[in-house]
Amino acid sequence: MAVYTEVSDEEVAAFSARYGLGQVLTCKGIAEGVENSNFLLVTEAGQFILTLYEKRVRAEDLPFFIELMEHLAGRGLPCPTPVRAPDGQALHRLAGRPAAIVTFLSGLWPKRIRPFHCAELGAALARMHLAGADFGRERANDLGPDAWRGLLESCGKGADEVRAGLTGDLHGELDAIEANWPTDLPRGVIHADLFPDNVFFRGEQLSGLIDFYFACTDFFAYDLAVCMNAWCFEPDRAFNSTKARQMLSRYTAERAVSRDELAALPILARGAAMRFLLTRLYDWLHTPSDAYVKRKDPLEYWDKLRFHREVTGPGAYGLEVA
Amino acid sequence: MAVYTEVSDEEVAAFSARYGLGQVLTCKGIAEGVENSNFLLVTEAGQFILTLYEKRVRAEDLPFFIELMEHLAGRGLPCPTPVRAPDGQALHRLAGRPAAIVTFLSGLWPKRIRPFHCAELGAALARMHLAGADFGRERANDLGPDAWRGLLESCGKGADEVRAGLTGDLHGELDAIEANWPTDLPRGVIHADLFPDNVFFRGEQLSGLIDFYFACTDFFAYDLAVCMNAWCFEPDRAFNSTKARQMLSRYTAERAVSRDELAALPILARGAAMRFLLTRLYDWLHTPSDAYVKRKDPLEYWDKLRFHREVTGPGAYGLEVA
Repeated sequence: MAVYTEVSDEEVAAFSARYGLGQVLTCKGIAEGVENSNFLLVTEAGQFILTLYEKRVRAEDLPFFIELMEHLAGRGLPCPTPVRAPDGQALHRLAGRPAAIVTFLSGLWPKRIRPFHCAELGAALARMHLAGADFGRERANDLGPDAWRGLLESCGKGADEVRAGLTGDLHGELDAIEANWPTDLPRGVIHADLFPDNVFFRGEQLSGLIDFYFACTDFFAYDLAVCMNAWCFEPDRAFNSTKARQMLSRYTAERAVSRDELAALPILARGAAMRFLLTRLYDWLHTPSDAYVKRKDPLEYWDKLRFHREVTGPGAYGLEVA
Repeated sequence: MAVYTEVSDEEVAAFSARYGLGQVLTCKGIAEGVENSNFLLVTEAGQFILTLYEKRVRAEDLPFFIELMEHLAGRGLPCPTPVRAPDGQALHRLAGRPAAIVTFLSGLWPKRIRPFHCAELGAALARMHLAGADFGRERANDLGPDAWRGLLESCGKGADEVRAGLTGDLHGELDAIEANWPTDLPRGVIHADLFPDNVFFRGEQLSGLIDFYFACTDFFAYDLAVCMNAWCFEPDRAFNSTKARQMLSRYTAERAVSRDELAALPILARGAAMRFLLTRLYDWLHTPSDAYVKRKDPLEYWDKLRFHREVTGPGAYGLEVA
């Protein structure tokens, strides 16, 4: 729930005019979204999303994100298309921050996940991975395994405030993940944050993928692991292997997945759980308790991590592995 | 900044269908608004605002608000029109709360107030007062002068946490306001909360009045006093008599204002300042510091109150009184 930066009506009008989008009819802050300030912008030219990039997004990464969205939209993926101003630039400054306007995608993000959502997501994720193959840019995953030790250490003993003994558990777990992390799997552009609130549906059809601001270059199967964690656990934290099977089978129908990738899924899923656990933990400890943003429970991801730790092979995810 | 209740996509789809509005294309929580949960709802039938009424709004008051909006919209006032479902009802339940769908008004609310905004507002306020003349219902102002003593007492000595000595100052001030409150001024339906974020403009034209959930029956001039406080002070809390003159002169051009009403403006403005001071104070003391809602500074209204206390007549508001 966010909108960090207030923008005056005069500033929005001037910004819209700069992009050649005509008079502004409406500009409303959107409650969803955590990292940036998003506004629904309606002008004479249509409906758009106006995003102001807040401090957590590095300005030097923005061209990667903008060009990636353009590239993927150009390959037919249902993702926002950045609007370029007549000067050829998609990024300009608004209210002292970098800002961009992208096309509006209709659809609703699913609050209650059903197996068909997971199936559609698996197919779209594979298509995204394939569509990114000829995208020329690279961006390191700055929330990937190389970052986790530092994140954990920056929390000191703070994890023990969340649950007694958690700091020690996390250090032990991170040792195991680092020791077993794969080194050579197919890689390319991944979304890295494809949670349900970043995926729109119209009826049973996936209609949009949004929020590419964690996108980077990493293992494709790691993106699948992020999605399994985000989509295939029930609210009571039980793993739903039907959902995972739907996701994985539709993914593998679109993109051929190697035996090594399948075999690595359990450790990738542990790592993906560690990544969200650590950023949630960091936010838990560093977000002022009176902030607008609702803090998310790090322990949800500890439970997910423990599930994957007990898994002996990809069969646990509902896949039939020959 | 609000959206208190989460609604699932299935629930929104069923709700839209119940109103005959077809398939839902988008439903996004709106960051603005404090009392209720508001969503931009786009369906095959067009753009709407979906409102879920949260606990601060009494369910038994909702028919008053709904019928008032219908009445005023029917008289040509630019306010939302509630959508009635085929069963004739505008109110139905959604996610366990009363909810309604109203038409969407385009426009931007002014973040920086200019004199022309105040002029347009004055005219629209007068037209609203006139349009409400044949509205058959009444609703007591439950945040009017009869409520202030109780509100102040419910804060105990809490005002002293905001500023040392404030509790005593407020009791003294409330004594004076009660002793001087007018008893016989023209009355009818007032908005009672017409702050800038409830008024939309397209360019220099007022395009919408929203949020009628404090509307009630009270002195028309009290509504003007609320607006003077909300629109005619600068961010540094200095009173801008040019803005007040614009507002009052356009108001009086539309609706004849009696000499008694003008003479009462200073005490009404003190009372209006007291009303917002007290609700802000109450919220300040009762809102958990980790709540989503940003608390508003009660002292802003103490400064406004003190300004009106020093005023000897309506001439201070830029009016030439014969």
